[in-house]
Amino acid sequence: MSINFKDYVANVQDFPEPGIIFRDISPLMEDGRAYAAATNAIVDYARAKNVEMVCGPEARGFIVGCPVAYKLGVGFAPARKKGKLPQPTVSVTYDLEYGQASLYMHKDAVKPGQRVLVVDDLMATGGTLAATIKLVEELGGIVVGTAFLIELTDLHGRDKIKGYDMFTLMQY
Amino acid sequence: MSINFKDYVANVQDFPEPGIIFRDISPLMEDGRAYAAATNAIVDYARAKNVEMVCGPEARGFIVGCPVAYKLGVGFAPARKKGKLPQPTVSVTYDLEYGQASLYMHKDAVKPGQRVLVVDDLMATGGTLAATIKLVEELGGIVVGTAFLIELTDLHGRDKIKGYDMFTLMQY
Repeated sequence: MSINFKDYVANVQDFPEPGIIFRDISPLMEDGRAYAAATNAIVDYARAKNVEMVCGPEARGFIVGCPVAYKLGVGFAPARKKGKLPQPTVSVTYDLEYGQASLYMHKDAVKPGQRVLVVDDLMATGGTLAATIKLVEELGGIVVGTAFLIELTDLHGRDKIKGYDMFTLMQY
Repeated sequence: MSINFKDYVANVQDFPEPGIIFRDISPLMEDGRAYAAATNAIVDYARAKNVEMVCGPEARGFIVGCPVAYKLGVGFAPARKKGKLPQPTVSVTYDLEYGQASLYMHKDAVKPGQRVLVVDDLMATGGTLAATIKLVEELGGIVVGTAFLIELTDLHGRDKIKGYDMFTLMQY
């Protein structure tokens, strides 16, 4: 019954740029059994942390985080790109593996003192993660854990977020 | 125990353009009880249709569709914007309420004959819905139902997708 999650990752050469191997989680999310198993693994991690809110960056962070929030019975607070959120926001600009980006959250998306799990599909350099953590903390949230389907260990993203607990389902 | 879902929709004036009232589902997704209840309503609808795959357009369609797929124990196939999907795609260009857009799906995201539920947060003119249905059908999927949190009835989106069953949680 156990699942080898890496069987559900497509390794796509030269995307989005030459020399990059893109770890595509499409096969995992398209398989009901694998998607549920991956979600449940993060749910188990989150339960041990007494998570009260799940937060994930646009857009694959929604695919990973939303079923986790649902199963926990808590809400989901999205971190979005410019121009997507209609109400007053906080924002942060940060460096990506390739380029630069900004993320925004509604000012009332996380309540002060709320125990927040930050999730995304992939942890690479940790830039998006660090930015999302910064937004959650600016709103007064407590980041009690972080969870990812995939960690690219060679990029040493963990070094950027020392002091935060992290769960990763697969490592490359 | 019953929930008035409209209590969890923020009505934002003049977003994204003057004269538009944006129906923002952020309060609903940020409230664990309301998010779960909305998800369960769509799950009940989908179960009666024997849904085998959930498909939703980027990015709020992920927030609505992913927990539905998880609860059903089926996969989720995203319809994404240009440049986001790393593998071979099918695509469609269509008119929005304000502007034009393209959507893409991986060629193997839906299997021929698969019973697909198409979901999104909001049904306005039906343009995004019609485009997503077209992609699913191009892949050989059977759209057995569509589901939305919100329907803007004055825009008559249902007229664009005659012949497809539709569930909407709230109407404005």
